[in-house]
Amino acid sequence: MRSQLEEQVLEKIRPGPAERKHIAEVAGQLLEIARSIGGAEAMIVGSVARDTWIHGDRDLDLFLLFDPALTRQDLEEKGLPLAKEIAGKMGAPYFQKYAEHPYINATVDGLDVDIVPCFRVESAAHIRSAVDRTPFHTRYIQDRIGPFVDDVLLLKQFTKTGGVYGSDQMTEGFSGYLCELLVLSCQGFSGLLESAAGWRPGTLIDPEDHRTKDFSEPLVMVDPVDPGRNVSASVSLDRMFEFVELARGYLEAPSPLFFFPPDDDLLTKEGLVQVIREKGTVLLGLIFPTPPYIADIVVPQLRRSQDAVRALLERNGFVVHAAGCEMQDLSCILLFELASGSAPLARRHTGPPVWNQQNADKFSLKYRDGPASQLLSGPFIEEGRYMVEVRRRFTEAEDLLRSPEVLEVSLGKHVRVSLEKGWKVHRDGDCWSTGSAPFITRFFQRESPLTRIRRLGKKRQ
Amino acid sequence: MRSQLEEQVLEKIRPGPAERKHIAEVAGQLLEIARSIGGAEAMIVGSVARDTWIHGDRDLDLFLLFDPALTRQDLEEKGLPLAKEIAGKMGAPYFQKYAEHPYINATVDGLDVDIVPCFRVESAAHIRSAVDRTPFHTRYIQDRIGPFVDDVLLLKQFTKTGGVYGSDQMTEGFSGYLCELLVLSCQGFSGLLESAAGWRPGTLIDPEDHRTKDFSEPLVMVDPVDPGRNVSASVSLDRMFEFVELARGYLEAPSPLFFFPPDDDLLTKEGLVQVIREKGTVLLGLIFPTPPYIADIVVPQLRRSQDAVRALLERNGFVVHAAGCEMQDLSCILLFELASGSAPLARRHTGPPVWNQQNADKFSLKYRDGPASQLLSGPFIEEGRYMVEVRRRFTEAEDLLRSPEVLEVSLGKHVRVSLEKGWKVHRDGDCWSTGSAPFITRFFQRESPLTRIRRLGKKRQ
Repeated sequence: MRSQLEEQVLEKIRPGPAERKHIAEVAGQLLEIARSIGGAEAMIVGSVARDTWIHGDRDLDLFLLFDPALTRQDLEEKGLPLAKEIAGKMGAPYFQKYAEHPYINATVDGLDVDIVPCFRVESAAHIRSAVDRTPFHTRYIQDRIGPFVDDVLLLKQFTKTGGVYGSDQMTEGFSGYLCELLVLSCQGFSGLLESAAGWRPGTLIDPEDHRTKDFSEPLVMVDPVDPGRNVSASVSLDRMFEFVELARGYLEAPSPLFFFPPDDDLLTKEGLVQVIREKGTVLLGLIFPTPPYIADIVVPQLRRSQDAVRALLERNGFVVHAAGCEMQDLSCILLFELASGSAPLARRHTGPPVWNQQNADKFSLKYRDGPASQLLSGPFIEEGRYMVEVRRRFTEAEDLLRSPEVLEVSLGKHVRVSLEKGWKVHRDGDCWSTGSAPFITRFFQRESPLTRIRRLGKKRQ
Repeated sequence: MRSQLEEQVLEKIRPGPAERKHIAEVAGQLLEIARSIGGAEAMIVGSVARDTWIHGDRDLDLFLLFDPALTRQDLEEKGLPLAKEIAGKMGAPYFQKYAEHPYINATVDGLDVDIVPCFRVESAAHIRSAVDRTPFHTRYIQDRIGPFVDDVLLLKQFTKTGGVYGSDQMTEGFSGYLCELLVLSCQGFSGLLESAAGWRPGTLIDPEDHRTKDFSEPLVMVDPVDPGRNVSASVSLDRMFEFVELARGYLEAPSPLFFFPPDDDLLTKEGLVQVIREKGTVLLGLIFPTPPYIADIVVPQLRRSQDAVRALLERNGFVVHAAGCEMQDLSCILLFELASGSAPLARRHTGPPVWNQQNADKFSLKYRDGPASQLLSGPFIEEGRYMVEVRRRFTEAEDLLRSPEVLEVSLGKHVRVSLEKGWKVHRDGDCWSTGSAPFITRFFQRESPLTRIRRLGKKRQ
């Protein structure tokens, strides 16, 4: 049933024998050391344990399952030293990292190894920390995935190429576990694509038919090991339908480009200046140092800040054509493409209905006795309400974005702290830098993953 | 109870003895001639008959009441010759004019005399033509207005000065009959102002308490002679609340300016250019020959055309700051003040939701295979819908207003016929002409009548 194209793809993405042997050896050593030290049950989890990793992946997850009778503090006090000891005995350099709990990240023989203490709970419905679920996921998939391993590899490669793989806050896409469950529930890669082509918001898949609540996300995959959890809670409406469109596009005209897209050109600074000139828009970038937190904390705040500054611009009479944001290592950028960088001095301001006498009198008095320099005309009456024309505070969007008004809007906490130390506003070509070029290129390409694949396909012809 | 100010006003607006004598003589002659010829009952109606006319008014209405057994054609065939004969015997030049029926307008001794044939129906609820109601109105007011004649004079002068007097389509204000009924129902001018200060939309006055239906207009004065008619149907929400504001303003600080405003300066062409430059807006005027119909027919079409062209501008990405229209003798003008005369080449165009596969495929195909010259970027997906960026057809509002697109919007019939012969688009200072200066001055003053009175009061100090 597999097409020749898909077989060719699989040959490229299946891990080779040497790769398998190498990972299996490292995994074996880690387990052996952990067991020899004792104190916790050791278990390899993740895609290596499930045999669903792709050639070139370098991630290995060792979980240390502790007695659930321990306190969370006990877990840290016993778990971290054990993890460090294991890394030490492997002779591997390591760091401490933080998710809900601290864990150890070590580099072993070129592999990126996470050593994660967790609780050995009875069932996934009784977890005490998000990571406690992972062993249950691994067992569930291990028991069933055998006949569908190749399908999972194809789906992972397909979603990665399409830019919809990853449940992090920036991507808002499909996790590896979700890919596995989708393949299982549709009996393979082709079955899933055919099913996805007809998805609607609110699509529900419940493999164990045990859902205990309603979910509001556009795509719902009830976790087979936890009836109260939606595995695809991270998938945004747009990522979901980008995947739907990719599925339709692939079914209509399969091509290797859905798995291995050719490189694309980045916009140069001169190219950016030319694009903006042609479109007749104005580009403003608000740039500030990246807050010292992980992406999953910073990115949602960045999105909220983007929406808040967009609303600030619009309240001040600037039409926002498009907006975007990116967190880079050193700096974050909020990008606004405006229909125009200027607004007229005159601004209409709507007051209360004239029949609401108390408010109407207050409004009228304010503008009669207020500083004449602010009032341009009025009060007059339109549709029964008082109206005035007043002077706009900012007739240039750049001035507004440079003003302290920016700090008055609803930014996330860490973004606000960073902005309070200062920010820069760049215009048009000056928004471009080597670091921001990929982001700015995507911002101006403004195309769905399928549109992109089709464009690159044409370009290659 | 009358203030000294109001007494002083009345001395200026009450008709003098010579004026009264002159009008009474002309009225008497008209009645005498009509009665000597016979064929219909002759009656003086309107403000002269009710004694509620203002010094300087030159209008006299002679109604000829015919047997209601006649057909409408009979009425014309008998009524018009009789009206002409009366005018002839007065030695007065006359024209035929048209409302719902033809009538005669004659100039007698400097007075503007309408001679109007109508049916002598049993009651105002049985009228066959709108003019049949007038004799009933006159009798109703004559029987009651005696003690309140001065109050009516004050109210008429007050509403005229405030720009809210007149039930024509351009003014959308208060008729003379409405002024009389308002004074009656509130027992005088002061009582009315105090009442009006608290008016809300939907204010209902029903002097005979005989209303037979619900009315949707903001102010309802049920006609005492016809329970199914709203005498203030012509009063717009804005005229109503301009009057409310005037009432509040006068009660707070009475001044002769509410009755006799000083002259105001008109905007010159240079002044207009300077105002626009300061405001940072762009003014476009669409000018075409006035259709050969009366104002009450043309003005509503002009308003509809203004709204339709405004919507056309906004659909095309131009932010309309203010709009207005005026019918002059020779040409009509639609005036648009824009936040900017230009819009960027790039325009966002929203398509169907991606889950609506049939429409989504059609949309996607249209832009994939369509002329590449139109597409700037996309399709991409936003909030689950397809989106594209395409080239805007008109990046200059002037070009749009000069294009045949203007003829595609919902204009009134006569406006369309006139536009089909051609129109001009003027910009900024070129919108000014001697004829349009008063309109353009009001357009830019943008003030309620009370604001205007207060401004002129300050200016005079």
